[in-house]
Amino acid sequence: MAFELSETSLGVTEGGMPESLQGARFVAGDWGTTAARFWLCDEEGNALDAREGAGVATLGGGQEACAAAFDRVTDGWPTVPAMLCGMIGGNIGWREAGYVGAPLPVSDLGRGAVRFEHAGRTVSILPGMRCVNPYGERDVMRGEETQIAGGCAIEGMRDGLFALPGTHNKWIRVEDGRLASFHTAISGELFAALSKNSVLVAPDSAPPHPGKAFDEGVRLSLRHGANNLLGLLFASRVRQVEKTLAREDGASFLSGLIVGADVAGALPQFSDDAPVNLICSDALAASYGRALELAGRASRALSGGDCARRGLALAFARVS
Amino acid sequence: MAFELSETSLGVTEGGMPESLQGARFVAGDWGTTAARFWLCDEEGNALDAREGAGVATLGGGQEACAAAFDRVTDGWPTVPAMLCGMIGGNIGWREAGYVGAPLPVSDLGRGAVRFEHAGRTVSILPGMRCVNPYGERDVMRGEETQIAGGCAIEGMRDGLFALPGTHNKWIRVEDGRLASFHTAISGELFAALSKNSVLVAPDSAPPHPGKAFDEGVRLSLRHGANNLLGLLFASRVRQVEKTLAREDGASFLSGLIVGADVAGALPQFSDDAPVNLICSDALAASYGRALELAGRASRALSGGDCARRGLALAFARVS
Repeated sequence: MAFELSETSLGVTEGGMPESLQGARFVAGDWGTTAARFWLCDEEGNALDAREGAGVATLGGGQEACAAAFDRVTDGWPTVPAMLCGMIGGNIGWREAGYVGAPLPVSDLGRGAVRFEHAGRTVSILPGMRCVNPYGERDVMRGEETQIAGGCAIEGMRDGLFALPGTHNKWIRVEDGRLASFHTAISGELFAALSKNSVLVAPDSAPPHPGKAFDEGVRLSLRHGANNLLGLLFASRVRQVEKTLAREDGASFLSGLIVGADVAGALPQFSDDAPVNLICSDALAASYGRALELAGRASRALSGGDCARRGLALAFARVS
Repeated sequence: MAFELSETSLGVTEGGMPESLQGARFVAGDWGTTAARFWLCDEEGNALDAREGAGVATLGGGQEACAAAFDRVTDGWPTVPAMLCGMIGGNIGWREAGYVGAPLPVSDLGRGAVRFEHAGRTVSILPGMRCVNPYGERDVMRGEETQIAGGCAIEGMRDGLFALPGTHNKWIRVEDGRLASFHTAISGELFAALSKNSVLVAPDSAPPHPGKAFDEGVRLSLRHGANNLLGLLFASRVRQVEKTLAREDGASFLSGLIVGADVAGALPQFSDDAPVNLICSDALAASYGRALELAGRASRALSGGDCARRGLALAFARVS
């Protein structure tokens, strides 16, 4: 657990609470599968303190483990209500919070939250979202909806396209102030599975990085739309055998192929030409930003932490 | 090493050679990466004896290892010439045999073979084939071309579509008596990587098998052409979470999605409506046959061994 602010650096009042925390109104928590972020917020949603915690999947499961982890991470914070989103509301979390269906007006974030009392606080957990995606399949997300709602508030946006690249990339369409629909592309998981368990990437390849090989992979996928990634992937192998691709660049080329197919599959679903809003790590923002640029589309990177906190503040204002 | 015929079951003449082997004219060998098949053939290419051997990748590499493996598998056979195809002509094989370019007239199989003397025999190794595939990428195969040429001879075919499902599925178009072009889809490798290393298949799933879940996966992929497999794969997960797909059927559904995308990507590249010729294991022939049926296309399964031996006989007749 890494704290962004050291507790010892905060001035402490006579009553035991640091002066700087006295305007605290609620605890905001973006509590995902593998990582968690918490903020102590004032009534405008500004962070008075920020901490990181363990993801739900690392806690071993069960309500008691989640409660204990919450107590550890909020130790020393005032006993104010908490508003949480993410996998903490899933079936391995603290309380199962279900799903709300799309479309959902951004201003409705907070609807359907599960509320319960814990150690003198009211804890609210936001539901996930589900929809029928553009392929006609049911799709789900949990936590991303809060980041998108926050991003829309920060940017004053009523229409736009968001991507949250990662293990399971969520592409979310915002239309007329509503989270309209979304789909999940398993880009990150596919790259991980193929880069470690196939002949496409040699063991001595460098990690994926922007550059010529990445661009070539992106361009190849873009040239074929999202068509037949199955038939394109073998190019990683042939190019290495024929030495037109260096073995050390194998992972970058494969990454480009997959990111390019992901972008090529998503863009036609949204006719607007506004910049795509990316919420992800800096490295993934660089990759997706470059692939979008090669597809002729602008993008901008938003801070996932800022978006989540703002979304949680919106939900807190609605339910309290 | 498993011998299909026991040596002790053969009548042996005074000179040491079994009577039944005296019409032997050449040794045919389909010597791949993971497996190898050998036949002692008469001048019409009929098998007088059949044996199996170790694949190139299991030999540890090097010409001496290949030569020793060949001596072991042909032990007791007459000292007639040998005609080999497959990875034995690759860079980890006995002699590197290069590639010939597509299109290649079926009657030209044998062109470019590497010939050398070994232990009193002339050994010929067929080159692989390369082409620019329908995606504009260079593609390669080694051994499959011989099976296709043999299949065309057996079926008296001058036009058709072949699929050789496996780790790397080769789709090969035969036009006007020529191996015209082909592409490789990494269907088998993708299924293996994702079924073992992703959230798409639960550890307690049954192995993939024909049935409702397989059909549903195929239909979903077919409905979207070969488009955006990346965006469809997550359906495996969501359907299990929502319990519309049993965990034990996860592998079958994923297999259906991938086989369906493979078929959907290949069929539009070939306008004919003749049955697709499948050369693969019985299990894969059942899967691909069913997916093709759901796509409205007939198929038939050919014996890989028969096709390889007939192709090698064609090549032997041409070079000797």
